[in-house]
Amino acid sequence: MLIVQKFGGTSVGDLERIANVAKRVAKTRDEGHDVIVVVSAMSGETNKLIEYAHFFSKNPQREAMDLLLSSGERVTSALLSIALNEMGYKAVAMTGRQAGIVTDKRHTSARIDHINPKPMGDAVKEGNIVVVAGFQGINEEGRVTTLGRGGSDLTAVAIAGALKADLCEIYTDVDGVYTTDPRIEPKAKKMDRISYDEMLELASLGAKVLQNRSVELAKKMGVNLVTRSSFNDNPGTLITKEENIMEKPLVSGIALDKNQSRVSLKGVEDRPGIASEIFNALAEDAVNVDMIVQTIGADGKTEIDFTVPQSEIERVKGVMERFKESIESIEYKDDVAKVSIVGVGMKSHSGVAAKAFTTMAKENINIEMISTSEIKISMVIDEKYAELAVRALHEAYELDK
Amino acid sequence: MLIVQKFGGTSVGDLERIANVAKRVAKTRDEGHDVIVVVSAMSGETNKLIEYAHFFSKNPQREAMDLLLSSGERVTSALLSIALNEMGYKAVAMTGRQAGIVTDKRHTSARIDHINPKPMGDAVKEGNIVVVAGFQGINEEGRVTTLGRGGSDLTAVAIAGALKADLCEIYTDVDGVYTTDPRIEPKAKKMDRISYDEMLELASLGAKVLQNRSVELAKKMGVNLVTRSSFNDNPGTLITKEENIMEKPLVSGIALDKNQSRVSLKGVEDRPGIASEIFNALAEDAVNVDMIVQTIGADGKTEIDFTVPQSEIERVKGVMERFKESIESIEYKDDVAKVSIVGVGMKSHSGVAAKAFTTMAKENINIEMISTSEIKISMVIDEKYAELAVRALHEAYELDK
Repeated sequence: MLIVQKFGGTSVGDLERIANVAKRVAKTRDEGHDVIVVVSAMSGETNKLIEYAHFFSKNPQREAMDLLLSSGERVTSALLSIALNEMGYKAVAMTGRQAGIVTDKRHTSARIDHINPKPMGDAVKEGNIVVVAGFQGINEEGRVTTLGRGGSDLTAVAIAGALKADLCEIYTDVDGVYTTDPRIEPKAKKMDRISYDEMLELASLGAKVLQNRSVELAKKMGVNLVTRSSFNDNPGTLITKEENIMEKPLVSGIALDKNQSRVSLKGVEDRPGIASEIFNALAEDAVNVDMIVQTIGADGKTEIDFTVPQSEIERVKGVMERFKESIESIEYKDDVAKVSIVGVGMKSHSGVAAKAFTTMAKENINIEMISTSEIKISMVIDEKYAELAVRALHEAYELDK
Repeated sequence: MLIVQKFGGTSVGDLERIANVAKRVAKTRDEGHDVIVVVSAMSGETNKLIEYAHFFSKNPQREAMDLLLSSGERVTSALLSIALNEMGYKAVAMTGRQAGIVTDKRHTSARIDHINPKPMGDAVKEGNIVVVAGFQGINEEGRVTTLGRGGSDLTAVAIAGALKADLCEIYTDVDGVYTTDPRIEPKAKKMDRISYDEMLELASLGAKVLQNRSVELAKKMGVNLVTRSSFNDNPGTLITKEENIMEKPLVSGIALDKNQSRVSLKGVEDRPGIASEIFNALAEDAVNVDMIVQTIGADGKTEIDFTVPQSEIERVKGVMERFKESIESIEYKDDVAKVSIVGVGMKSHSGVAAKAFTTMAKENINIEMISTSEIKISMVIDEKYAELAVRALHEAYELDK
């Protein structure tokens, strides 16, 4: 098999840990597999470099930032290659450029355009373990670019796709994907398998194991993704095509997002296009609106409720200032939480939503907003009931079984 | 004018110092010049990375070392570019690769093969200050290489040569080249100008301002080199063609090297080729033999004396073991010093050597070995007289005037 293994910042956090990563990579090689390793910067390095840059500028030149930030991953890849060589393994370190990773021009948040698989493929054929500096590539002008947050995961998935690897293992400090956050519900169980779509919903709903960009790319390229811990030998969670999952559970997991704010626009002027104007204005100011509910109150007046990340609430206020003539009153509420139930089984089963609402009612939790998709039900509730709601739903759907 | 400015590790030792370098570069730009800046890694960074590598291996994989070590200069170049941009100057950071620096394949001690001047030339034409990461390039296979000790100086000189710059300024923490080490002779004077050849002799004799590789390259490419301090505005020393120096002093400077050992081979077997065998064997073991003197003693026996760097004395002993059948006795002496007088004026004036010997005699200093070249006289003496000899010669040749 060809296996791509990606090790994040905490997994390569110091020299001892890099030595442990070398042992794990060597073990995979000993099992007869070809291995391409993708590494992040040692934890703390990237933040240190950002601090350096901010000493000179609040808004540092982006092209130079990419040159600056890409250096951390280069260091780790060189060190891991040195460690593997010393252990008697043939290894070669490659920068994003050397690994043939070509991106668009967007400095500090570039997207991978394509990968030239030849340099890595040739090195693997020659018996090398290839150690790639994650998070970086070059654009068509030959300038170094970086991929933004989660960039090393993306590098790993894109390489696995381009080289048709059998498996792409993402090593972090957690064992895999859980039915819910174990810090909230100790009975939470690690899932063996989960579909791309479920993972996407869970990730966008607050599960921090993987970023959506990586899961989306894995889905697009059909990469079998495994998320597992670099600190033990537990098998982790396989994220794969829905058809690869035999037994589809009704509900796979419960996600919680407490970083949402609710905005209620009451008495919105009754004319066509007003909602479109508001949400276009928010989009132009880069506000990420999540759930939207529009209702006509008993008084015949239109109410629009929506949620946004708490960090964007000031920008929302700025936009709303422009609409104050058209809206009777605006309420902002920070202490809300979004609880979501995710599962591909919902597609073919009814009654999943009903059970959620019943469970909330039993606990006397008021549901303020509801939104559903084919494989997800999200509810906005008062933040103080967040953990209670998660535990109640976890039990109701028997996720601890 | 097009000016290349190179700032070494101490000049960019921390963020405050990088900010000062930015001011100095900006000032040169304000004076109407085009500027290309070459930077080293922040002092301490390279040693830190070497320590990291040695955690894994005593003899780390060279190709990976180059990837590792080249990252320090990249960081500095990115930070300086960010600083200049923030100050309102158009600046662009470039790696060795982006600057078009192509080297041979020798990892960790590569030589610059050629420079493609187009990327830097175009950037300068577009009004940019170009900030190049020193010490690095890529080889023909596209792998990152580093240039070894003094590599950033070499980068600067090679760029100045390739782009036909009017001046290449090497900024360090000293004011320039002195007639002798001011710690030994406080009356030592900074020279305004010195020829390449004199500088080469002084550098190889222990003056630590510039490495020979850089001076040799400057000579070959006809680059006007200035060495000056980044901590004040003193004009420094211009190192240039002999014909650019109007008033040629008889003697330019006195150099001292205390890191030499003297090896005396007494009663060497009297057969043709024995000396050749000995020195070939030393060369094969990478011993850098400096001065060699062969004499026939009063007893008709051959004596061979030579000097080597103290650090190589163990290797010499290893080689000599193989010749013990052919040599009556071998003496090793560590407490010797080499004092040298350098000056292009010697070429056309006699009596320079005689004055040196007279000066030594006056001070009752025994000369153990002598070697001369067109512009240099070197004498090996007892180490305890080293400073006295330097001061006496400095006065004899009126270098304080």
